[in-house]
Amino acid sequence: MGALLQRIKAPNDVKKLADQDLPALCEEIRETIINTVADNGGHLASNLGVVELTVALHRVFTLPQDSIVWDVGHQSYTHKLLTGRADAFSTLRQEGGLSGFPSRAESVCDPFTTGHSSTSISSALGLSVAKCLDDDPGHVIAVIGDGALTGGLAYEGLNNAGRLRRNLIVILNDNAMSISRNVGSMARYLSYVRAKPAYLNAKDSVEAALCRVPKVGESMASGVRRMKNVIKKNIFNTTIFQDLGFNYYGPFDGHDLKELISVLTMAKSIDRPVLIHIRTYKGRGYKYAENDPGMYHGLPAFDREKGAGETGTRGFSHAFGLAMCTIAQENKRLCAVTAAMESGTGLSEFHKSFRGRFFDVGIAEEHAVTFCAGLARGGMIPVFAVYSTFLQRAYDQLIHDAALQKLKIILAIDRAGVVGEDGRTHQGVFDVAFLRTVPGIHVYAPAYYDELDDNLSDCIEGEDHLYAVRYPRGKALYRPEGFQPSGKPFDVFGDAESEIAVVTYGRLFSFACEAMQTLESQGIRCRLIKLNRIIPLDPGVSEMLKSCTSVFFFEEGIRTGGVAEALGSALLEKGFTGRYIMRCIENGFIRHAPMFRMLEHLGLDKSGMLHTIQENLNRK
Amino acid sequence: MGALLQRIKAPNDVKKLADQDLPALCEEIRETIINTVADNGGHLASNLGVVELTVALHRVFTLPQDSIVWDVGHQSYTHKLLTGRADAFSTLRQEGGLSGFPSRAESVCDPFTTGHSSTSISSALGLSVAKCLDDDPGHVIAVIGDGALTGGLAYEGLNNAGRLRRNLIVILNDNAMSISRNVGSMARYLSYVRAKPAYLNAKDSVEAALCRVPKVGESMASGVRRMKNVIKKNIFNTTIFQDLGFNYYGPFDGHDLKELISVLTMAKSIDRPVLIHIRTYKGRGYKYAENDPGMYHGLPAFDREKGAGETGTRGFSHAFGLAMCTIAQENKRLCAVTAAMESGTGLSEFHKSFRGRFFDVGIAEEHAVTFCAGLARGGMIPVFAVYSTFLQRAYDQLIHDAALQKLKIILAIDRAGVVGEDGRTHQGVFDVAFLRTVPGIHVYAPAYYDELDDNLSDCIEGEDHLYAVRYPRGKALYRPEGFQPSGKPFDVFGDAESEIAVVTYGRLFSFACEAMQTLESQGIRCRLIKLNRIIPLDPGVSEMLKSCTSVFFFEEGIRTGGVAEALGSALLEKGFTGRYIMRCIENGFIRHAPMFRMLEHLGLDKSGMLHTIQENLNRK
Repeated sequence: MGALLQRIKAPNDVKKLADQDLPALCEEIRETIINTVADNGGHLASNLGVVELTVALHRVFTLPQDSIVWDVGHQSYTHKLLTGRADAFSTLRQEGGLSGFPSRAESVCDPFTTGHSSTSISSALGLSVAKCLDDDPGHVIAVIGDGALTGGLAYEGLNNAGRLRRNLIVILNDNAMSISRNVGSMARYLSYVRAKPAYLNAKDSVEAALCRVPKVGESMASGVRRMKNVIKKNIFNTTIFQDLGFNYYGPFDGHDLKELISVLTMAKSIDRPVLIHIRTYKGRGYKYAENDPGMYHGLPAFDREKGAGETGTRGFSHAFGLAMCTIAQENKRLCAVTAAMESGTGLSEFHKSFRGRFFDVGIAEEHAVTFCAGLARGGMIPVFAVYSTFLQRAYDQLIHDAALQKLKIILAIDRAGVVGEDGRTHQGVFDVAFLRTVPGIHVYAPAYYDELDDNLSDCIEGEDHLYAVRYPRGKALYRPEGFQPSGKPFDVFGDAESEIAVVTYGRLFSFACEAMQTLESQGIRCRLIKLNRIIPLDPGVSEMLKSCTSVFFFEEGIRTGGVAEALGSALLEKGFTGRYIMRCIENGFIRHAPMFRMLEHLGLDKSGMLHTIQENLNRK
Repeated sequence: MGALLQRIKAPNDVKKLADQDLPALCEEIRETIINTVADNGGHLASNLGVVELTVALHRVFTLPQDSIVWDVGHQSYTHKLLTGRADAFSTLRQEGGLSGFPSRAESVCDPFTTGHSSTSISSALGLSVAKCLDDDPGHVIAVIGDGALTGGLAYEGLNNAGRLRRNLIVILNDNAMSISRNVGSMARYLSYVRAKPAYLNAKDSVEAALCRVPKVGESMASGVRRMKNVIKKNIFNTTIFQDLGFNYYGPFDGHDLKELISVLTMAKSIDRPVLIHIRTYKGRGYKYAENDPGMYHGLPAFDREKGAGETGTRGFSHAFGLAMCTIAQENKRLCAVTAAMESGTGLSEFHKSFRGRFFDVGIAEEHAVTFCAGLARGGMIPVFAVYSTFLQRAYDQLIHDAALQKLKIILAIDRAGVVGEDGRTHQGVFDVAFLRTVPGIHVYAPAYYDELDDNLSDCIEGEDHLYAVRYPRGKALYRPEGFQPSGKPFDVFGDAESEIAVVTYGRLFSFACEAMQTLESQGIRCRLIKLNRIIPLDPGVSEMLKSCTSVFFFEEGIRTGGVAEALGSALLEKGFTGRYIMRCIENGFIRHAPMFRMLEHLGLDKSGMLHTIQENLNRK
């Protein structure tokens, strides 16, 4: 850690540095961030883009009296370094260490614990209104990227903030891309606005422009005055943000500290909603990230000198992408939809090969589902590839626009289950429970790539209704010898006559196989049920299990409303009188840790399963 | 039914009428709508507002080759009358009759079955893209009100439509109010745009304005040309819709048939996204509705000549509103938030008395929850009053912005349970199941107004986390003599020693009491468990029931993921070996019928409960 950074032990310490030291401080911050992310993995390009902005914010505002709300929060590393967390920064994203996102548990300077996109304006507005009701003079600043601005929630926030006329500062951090290149009309619009010179007030600028017209000048009094009125009336508002009630200032160079500090100081003095548009460059100061900001958005540990190589993770996302390409060759009605996660969901190849049938809608999961409904109504077969945690945003659309319409829409749910280092805000552990409440949906949980292929094909060939195929982050795990996808709703392994049954689905099947082998070596024989289609649960499962004496269910998902509960009540209705032991996730907000450590903590890996089974059998 | 309307037997028949007959047709349509809604109840003001628009659409476009997507769909009555449903129109909203919303089951001219707001642009865009991929020349038209435009999903749709450059016609039906007066910056912005003269192209209008400037005219060639360039560059886009990539035309008089037909014909010829802004008046042609469009938005049957009186329903919504006012007097931190449902949720009095603590955010449930998170973070106690079916829209915000933050936010869930005539799209039967998946939430289900009061107070005084109080549409039902709210998580009635137990919550408790009395008169004694706090389920419930021989659970909510399933698996874990009979809602998409008929069909009224209990006890 650099000498200047070492002097920043607490919030607001950055105010003690001399102006001329700030550029060097920014360099030290960049060094620290690059080194730490190279060691621990994390979000790099976006953090390098907001170093100057963050320093400027901390020079102008005083925390925690003033509040900075980082949208998503993946770009809050500099903020962490400036708020007493520099010493702990080397533990970033490690088990027990700092979170990769803002966290109320870490600092009073983090007003919210976040990780999902487009929420900052709404929460900042609420905070600002509360301060106002309390006569608290503190300022509230929301920093939102142009990518997050594609989410409807951000628009709802703008729409309300502009009207409520609170002192609220929104900083639009415009780097011309979100996770991948930004899409939609708003992106095109911003690129147009960016190209204009900075101006402090649209009205002033129009008037100034008029006055500059040669040969007219101030002399042509009446004509110009009338013309100005026409223009003021007809075309007063020059940016969307002014239309929505904000004072708009920008665009400014987001790497020019002096300019940022002066603009923020000005904004602080205005007692109404202000939007400051700044232009930043993702990856600034690290050449590999500057050249490929998309790759350096979020990434695992890498060699700082050589840059990140191909990560080489050819896991479920890759398998899904391959399957989509194969099917699309044959089936001209197959379409792929993503909400700003083309690369993450494995759709890059599909995009290249089938441009007309690929749709990146921006960070807009609700629209994605309703748009799919329209595609399906028009005879296409849309597949919406989405991370489990983000699908939560489209819950009503799944019910109202997809399930109710009985249209064939297929959800490809990636990052289902625990996700590891991203932590509490990103766990994919709710989808099974909330999808169970969606009428008529069929949900598959493949454990292997060829199963995923088969499931996808089954959905495409099946009757018209909503489908989902859910699979975890990363690669497939242990596969028992001779395993072949059966195409059935469930399969039975081990001793089909045993009175002890283990039930599970998805990747936990691999652990359960290994656990069963250990049990067998101890002379304990059991039957292992692999659920392939988890929703609806096949009635054959409870029928087959009702005579068992002990049934163990291991579920990588929350307990409340999950499949284990469903099987439990189904067994009870069938008159089952044995013991039923569920091992599920009791609280979905799981702190960050490596993915397999998480499964271990949750008792859902091989040893956890063995422990649960042996403990309960011994108790008998 | 009028003579002209009688000639319209099938879609496109309206094209056969002479131009000069159209005004008379509109009158006949208004008559039919007013009479039918007066008889059956329904949406009135909005339907009277779009009579001319609908007739114009059906003159210009050909169905079902072209598709009209009505946002929400409550304003589709004229569309129904013009698409072969005039004869059946008297059955509107009645059991077995026409739905009050678009329905694919009714007509090929209804592309989607809808009822929730702000979805039309997204689904129409999908349909349009599919048609394009199929080389289908059909047009797609989305009709969206200014109220629905406050929803973020509409913005996501616009953002994508403008970019995709499809042939898509969006009609903004601007009546300056949604259900109640419209809110937010967009509303203010539209009022500004409305005041401007209609123009076909912003650029043309600027140029025309410049040319009209007296004494400058065409003569001052070079000066004006440079000025025009300045203006074109700096202020080319004059409406938000143009900024978002649409050709914008308007505002036009939405009751001028000739103008509408000419504009729609023009729009049909443009091969890119077009937004047509029309100005309509809710309630047009029925003086009572013109004078109070809010009251005539949706209402029960009324006297056509005298107009609707006070409905006199002083049910749960009213009780909630009273309780809020009482508490707010004492507690200065209590705030009320609604998403365009001030009157429906009973908050009108609160609004009047506590203006600074009342927030109508427009049809923006996601923002409502995240905004509440901000309020709570600032020390306020926000209560978000929302219909069950619309809370679905904020599912991720409940998890990410409310539950994860452990902030005290209280959801007042109105219209929980079956809702009656609004039918499939509006049933409040999912909330319990999806709220069970939200970590740490406490949910109460009062059966009576004083219970509601107590629950609300308990939430306000309780520890910091997410709460919900859910209550049904309408009034409280039968209350057993001497009943007093206990404040406990559950209460036991009847014979506490009986081996037969009936478990339920909310208003079904009234039916269960009545059923229990009948059973007692037949010599069958049972215990009746009333769950007061349904999430989390108190462990005492399963503990107490584990020795029973028969447990019946009646739940006015979906089965999958509901409380009955939860109790079932809890009983199983406790070693319960009796019989467990769940009577819940198997499919949440329940067709429209009177509310109590619906409960009867579902077997959830007194006689249904008796039938289930007796049948199962006999089988023993």
